Amino acid sequence: MNPTGDYETSAEPGLLHPIPEKCGDPVERYRTLRRTTENLCEPLSPEDCAVQSMPDASPVKWHLAHTSWFFETFLLERKTPGYRCFHPEFRYLFNSYYETVGPQYLRPSRGLITRPSVDEVLDYRQHVDRHMTDLLENSPPENIKLHGVVELGIQHEQQHQELLLTDVKHLLSRNPMHPAYGDCRRPDRSAPIPLTWHRIPGGPRWIGHDGHGFAFDNETPRHQILVNDWEIASRPITTGEYLAFMKDGGYERVDLWLADGWTEIRKQEWNSPLYWKFRDGKWFQMTLAGLRELEPAEPVCHVSYYEADAYARWAGARLPTEAEWESAATGTHREGNFVESGLLQPAPADDDSKDGPAQLFGDVWEWTQSPYISYPGFRPLPGALGEYNGKFMCNQQVLRGGSCVTPSSHIRATYRNFLYPDQRWQFTGIRLARDIG
Amino acid sequence: MNPTGDYETSAEPGLLHPIPEKCGDPVERYRTLRRTTENLCEPLSPEDCAVQSMPDASPVKWHLAHTSWFFETFLLERKTPGYRCFHPEFRYLFNSYYETVGPQYLRPSRGLITRPSVDEVLDYRQHVDRHMTDLLENSPPENIKLHGVVELGIQHEQQHQELLLTDVKHLLSRNPMHPAYGDCRRPDRSAPIPLTWHRIPGGPRWIGHDGHGFAFDNETPRHQILVNDWEIASRPITTGEYLAFMKDGGYERVDLWLADGWTEIRKQEWNSPLYWKFRDGKWFQMTLAGLRELEPAEPVCHVSYYEADAYARWAGARLPTEAEWESAATGTHREGNFVESGLLQPAPADDDSKDGPAQLFGDVWEWTQSPYISYPGFRPLPGALGEYNGKFMCNQQVLRGGSCVTPSSHIRATYRNFLYPDQRWQFTGIRLARDIG
Amino acid sequence: MNPTGDYETSAEPGLLHPIPEKCGDPVERYRTLRRTTENLCEPLSPEDCAVQSMPDASPVKWHLAHTSWFFETFLLERKTPGYRCFHPEFRYLFNSYYETVGPQYLRPSRGLITRPSVDEVLDYRQHVDRHMTDLLENSPPENIKLHGVVELGIQHEQQHQELLLTDVKHLLSRNPMHPAYGDCRRPDRSAPIPLTWHRIPGGPRWIGHDGHGFAFDNETPRHQILVNDWEIASRPITTGEYLAFMKDGGYERVDLWLADGWTEIRKQEWNSPLYWKFRDGKWFQMTLAGLRELEPAEPVCHVSYYEADAYARWAGARLPTEAEWESAATGTHREGNFVESGLLQPAPADDDSKDGPAQLFGDVWEWTQSPYISYPGFRPLPGALGEYNGKFMCNQQVLRGGSCVTPSSHIRATYRNFLYPDQRWQFTGIRLARDIG
Amino acid sequence: MNPTGDYETSAEPGLLHPIPEKCGDPVERYRTLRRTTENLCEPLSPEDCAVQSMPDASPVKWHLAHTSWFFETFLLERKTPGYRCFHPEFRYLFNSYYETVGPQYLRPSRGLITRPSVDEVLDYRQHVDRHMTDLLENSPPENIKLHGVVELGIQHEQQHQELLLTDVKHLLSRNPMHPAYGDCRRPDRSAPIPLTWHRIPGGPRWIGHDGHGFAFDNETPRHQILVNDWEIASRPITTGEYLAFMKDGGYERVDLWLADGWTEIRKQEWNSPLYWKFRDGKWFQMTLAGLRELEPAEPVCHVSYYEADAYARWAGARLPTEAEWESAATGTHREGNFVESGLLQPAPADDDSKDGPAQLFGDVWEWTQSPYISYPGFRPLPGALGEYNGKFMCNQQVLRGGSCVTPSSHIRATYRNFLYPDQRWQFTGIRLARDIG
Repeated sequence: MNPTGDYETSAEPGLLHPIPEKCGDPVERYRTLRRTTENLCEPLSPEDCAVQSMPDASPVKWHLAHTSWFFETFLLERKTPGYRCFHPEFRYLFNSYYETVGPQYLRPSRGLITRPSVDEVLDYRQHVDRHMTDLLENSPPENIKLHGVVELGIQHEQQHQELLLTDVKHLLSRNPMHPAYGDCRRPDRSAPIPLTWHRIPGGPRWIGHDGHGFAFDNETPRHQILVNDWEIASRPITTGEYLAFMKDGGYERVDLWLADGWTEIRKQEWNSPLYWKFRDGKWFQMTLAGLRELEPAEPVCHVSYYEADAYARWAGARLPTEAEWESAATGTHREGNFVESGLLQPAPADDDSKDGPAQLFGDVWEWTQSPYISYPGFRPLPGALGEYNGKFMCNQQVLRGGSCVTPSSHIRATYRNFLYPDQRWQFTGIRLARDIG
Repeated sequence: MNPTGDYETSAEPGLLHPIPEKCGDPVERYRTLRRTTENLCEPLSPEDCAVQSMPDASPVKWHLAHTSWFFETFLLERKTPGYRCFHPEFRYLFNSYYETVGPQYLRPSRGLITRPSVDEVLDYRQHVDRHMTDLLENSPPENIKLHGVVELGIQHEQQHQELLLTDVKHLLSRNPMHPAYGDCRRPDRSAPIPLTWHRIPGGPRWIGHDGHGFAFDNETPRHQILVNDWEIASRPITTGEYLAFMKDGGYERVDLWLADGWTEIRKQEWNSPLYWKFRDGKWFQMTLAGLRELEPAEPVCHVSYYEADAYARWAGARLPTEAEWESAATGTHREGNFVESGLLQPAPADDDSKDGPAQLFGDVWEWTQSPYISYPGFRPLPGALGEYNGKFMCNQQVLRGGSCVTPSSHIRATYRNFLYPDQRWQFTGIRLARDIG
Repeated sequence: MNPTGDYETSAEPGLLHPIPEKCGDPVERYRTLRRTTENLCEPLSPEDCAVQSMPDASPVKWHLAHTSWFFETFLLERKTPGYRCFHPEFRYLFNSYYETVGPQYLRPSRGLITRPSVDEVLDYRQHVDRHMTDLLENSPPENIKLHGVVELGIQHEQQHQELLLTDVKHLLSRNPMHPAYGDCRRPDRSAPIPLTWHRIPGGPRWIGHDGHGFAFDNETPRHQILVNDWEIASRPITTGEYLAFMKDGGYERVDLWLADGWTEIRKQEWNSPLYWKFRDGKWFQMTLAGLRELEPAEPVCHVSYYEADAYARWAGARLPTEAEWESAATGTHREGNFVESGLLQPAPADDDSKDGPAQLFGDVWEWTQSPYISYPGFRPLPGALGEYNGKFMCNQQVLRGGSCVTPSSHIRATYRNFLYPDQRWQFTGIRLARDIG
Repeated sequence: MNPTGDYETSAEPGLLHPIPEKCGDPVERYRTLRRTTENLCEPLSPEDCAVQSMPDASPVKWHLAHTSWFFETFLLERKTPGYRCFHPEFRYLFNSYYETVGPQYLRPSRGLITRPSVDEVLDYRQHVDRHMTDLLENSPPENIKLHGVVELGIQHEQQHQELLLTDVKHLLSRNPMHPAYGDCRRPDRSAPIPLTWHRIPGGPRWIGHDGHGFAFDNETPRHQILVNDWEIASRPITTGEYLAFMKDGGYERVDLWLADGWTEIRKQEWNSPLYWKFRDGKWFQMTLAGLRELEPAEPVCHVSYYEADAYARWAGARLPTEAEWESAATGTHREGNFVESGLLQPAPADDDSKDGPAQLFGDVWEWTQSPYISYPGFRPLPGALGEYNGKFMCNQQVLRGGSCVTPSSHIRATYRNFLYPDQRWQFTGIRLARDIG
């Protein structure tokens, strides 16, 4: 997933893997998706939807419009004869392909577009939905190409569902009154369980998507890689463990940090994860349910790669590579604390003894030590997609597994998310690895 | 007036000039003021009211709340026994005294406070209005001190009425769709009239406020100053004249500019006044009525001090000092194109032959060559006001006369506005002066 | 004086006041001047002469070359038929008129021009001196115009003598070994003497240069100004007094500061004058003689306007206006601790009872509360000088009286120096004033 | 190699591979090394040696001192009983371990340390050399540990020999007179030869250092990696080919660039490689021999990773991975245009038909598409070295093969250099690769 909300629009008909088996009734899938997005906005006022709190984030209103623009641009305008676009300027305003269509200032200025209003954007959504329903009802299932693009639009909007929540969280965190997004369900309180290690045998491993079901192109081509024997931690690092790192002077010890990380934490004056606040002798964290006292058994989240890496060094371990992570996750059940749980916050690990690592999926995106680059043999395609493919493959790190605000049907073992090492507003956490012998 | 919206709150009971003669029915004056402010928001959506388009501007919602906070803090909390404030956090959120009460980041972050919503802020206004009406109805006219603070609150809110319009104009100008604030009345089109000169005799002149009616402390003490004979231009410089300066290479000729001005125009890449756009071979300007073709007879506005100074040098003239300006304006009628005209844009000068300079009041704030400093003998007062007085008396220039978005009852010949020389989002224009002999 | 070293080159033949009475033997005056400049470089290595420690400062080598360039450009190239310039590129390299002749990056990049070497620059000086001696020996004293330009070149180089020392001081201060420029003489240690006040009667006062002797154009035209009765402090503020301000929380109390000053001290993290260091429980200051323990009776120096203003407010006083200062200084003896004393550091006031304020001249430049603007009736001249005159008359404050690194023959009561309010690397100090009654 | 000159000092006795076979007479090797460094400074003045032209570069004087500090700190102070350091402050001034020993400002301020002078630094070198000679003469060859550290000091100083030249080139390039470092030999002019492709078979390949001879720890551990069949270009891209890319709008076409690259070239306003200048209708480039007209057959150099990547995309190819590069270079002769050639500029490829790719070693460092990360199983060591190992393994790209200013004995097939993708002041160039099938 590309957290800037630009990646996905590169897609064009037929270029990605169609997923007939998932489709069910396409109209129903589409409607569910769209309703879900709008439901996420239920607790928000027009003001909440209009404001952009930092350049990396987008206003909720923009997410609502841009996801509709995607269906309009890549399906309605191409497949519905005589379709009239809702508003000609929207092509410009809600297109994330800003580089090629207009001046650079637009992205950080998304929050300045107070008009159209949220209500007008919701009208835009209804207009698109009406025509999309017509289109879907009149397209036979055999039209693989069209359904491929529909699937892409669905995956795209799911990504924006997650971004919508992370961006709202950032916005509300800037308000000194600490308003809550909503009354989130709370997990059962539980004592922290000890961290243990699971051995993962090495050898040649197949990495990347096998072609069954939907995947983004950066998950391909499938290829073999040699992995050493290694060990994976039984669960993500908790806030309690991270607090021990802080109390041990973690943010003051230069020897624990990458050079760029050390520069960054001093420039930004970081001395805790994002959203943590120390008040009256206690640590709190801003959550989508407002300010809550720190829960020591919860996975730590909103840490940068630099912090994850420093923690790992402090703990005498390291972060996994993405190949290691994928080899550990392949074949395990893709279940966990996703957005559907309603917690909207990572939850403590269960006490159940496990035969494998817990919480690989959901809760927090897990930083890997792998820079985000192309898989060997990855081949730029012709057209807009070809322009796009390598575009973000520099200076970013791969994360795996999804988070507590990811839609559960969106994730898989081969899914590659990527972020700059200093970004923290996504639900990013720490999974340790270590060598054997 | 302090365009950052912070100046006025320095006021405290009894420290400024009470103005019994103006008061009329105090309840009626108060209600008219408050209704006027809310009427100005009529054309705006909640989104329009929430967003802040640059650090110098504030969101409309903040203006609505802050002016109420002023009455609550300086009157209701002090004069109404048992008054319960509307919301305890509002003291912090809508106080512009941020330096002494909280961290620095708040000002540029006013646009991030999406909650309270506009509706809640309007509730806050009603709450304050209810209690203010009670207070006013129960305060005898002899309570000079209380009525002095009320007058101050009124003057304060008038300043914010002007800021509200300039800030909204800036916000809408950032939207590529060029939305209009409203359907503003248009002035009758008219041919430009030639610029002539009026001679003003020199000698010792009394400058500063004489104590009759309301004035801010920076207009005192009244004092004598020696002024040479000089000439004043018959009207402000027009957009047509300014265009001639541009066509003559005004923005490329280093010899026309102050050193700091030259640095600024290159850094900002300025080559026209703010809000001007060149399209299809013609110049347009963004107005509160949307994008309009340039009207050559209109006074130019939204120019910085640097641009006004460079224009004057190019024209072989100079800007007036504030003492010159005041001596020319004293005794003339305080009439002109103010906010009540509904034009919300400077208007061409009338063709009427005049015995004195036209348009001294209204249309555009006129840059003077005088830095904003204290008058001789100005004396810091004890208390919060004393802390405040000299605070902005550095690095700013004085402007005189009010603009087309100033309330007409707010301005006078001794009124001193001040802005940094690079600020342009107020309705600032150019009046020329020249020496004799 | 313009500390950036650019002001002076605006001069052209005949435009400034010729000063026949001062000239003595022009060849001897010229030689003395040039020898003095080179003597100032005696203690410096080629490395010391090449490096630029901040954009506001210039390398010593540049000062040596630029002052020669001045004589070459404005005299030799115009008055010596057949003169061949030393090196054609030097016109570009050592011209401070960079705005009109080349790209902007040059000023802060003066320290990157390692070639020509110092030795080559000294050759350049000799070349210019040889031809200047010829020219002077062959120019009759009646050639007022030529001698006017010579005098200007002398005044110009005197300004650069001061800048050379302030720039070297800044450079050496950045070296953690605190190297000394030289073995400066130390003043006799003395106990601080109490600060008292001298009353100065008000009324109309003539301000500006009267035309006898050399003056810069910004000292003209002479004009009358009305001054109130006031009091001037008997001496500049000492380091001991300034320390009391610091200990009283001077740098933490927002109420003492101009708004821009408060912003600046927090941005720069200032909590003492420039060059002060706290070590092992004591305050030291970097001087041209290396690191020395603070001497409480010495005038405080290297403070910004913001600090001077905050100190004055803390002390219940204010800074003088430049008209007040000039009226107090007019008629007093122009004697004091100038560069010729060899102290190169402000010295404690003498204990002698005085009938007037001490140390008006020399020791430290005294900040006034007057912004640097033109005198009434000041008139831009045609040509390069006209381009120049108003150029710096914005955003700067006037300082008066010269410092311990100013040549004594360079200063006078009407002399107007000017600096941005945040500049501190000149020897700038504090003289208090106060109103009466 | 770490271009910031900090990497190498992490070394400690015994931690790296000793290289007995290379040693020859250790005293002679040491002396040759030291003489070579000083010879490189021969053409430079004290001013040239003192100035730092940008934060990434260091002054020549600092290179001279820091390499001596290395021998003093890691050998003389530990192995020579009673050794007295040359100057106690030098430990601080010339230590690149600034993070742990002092404040952050030091690195970009290296150019402000005008004292000690170059002469004093040369004295320092002699002092160290005298004691080092004694130490070496009295250390038996069996003292593997000591000779390992000596070898490390030699390798370290070789890196600084290269940096010294690249930093001087940057400095001289900032001088508008384009001074030459020296009279460099010119290669024979030759016509460009066509670029062809060599097929490299894939399969499991051993990557990393095999333990024979010296290597840095980042070249270990040796491990197997699966490489696909691929093709390598027969020579680096030439300036003529790069010019074709520029003429085809290379710098204006967003589709050719990584997202971060596009942002960077617009921010920096890059439209050609570093040091290229367009004058009078022709392209020139600044070289160590001064400004020279572009030679179309020469390898292009001083390009960033972003430019190398964009060029490759434009050419329908890609950059090699570091594993591919190493597998192609393994077993080939390590010969090429190194610093000893005296050209100090990349040279055109020979016309000789080759059975393999030419110019893998020398001429230009070749950007690979591999981010700089640790090899699998790489293990942080205890102590200072352990602190160091991962420090730069983030946000940088690997380069291979050495350049025309690298000492020939310094390079090998497994050598990993690394730079940030926006750095261009090293001699960095482009080698293309492409997939098969």
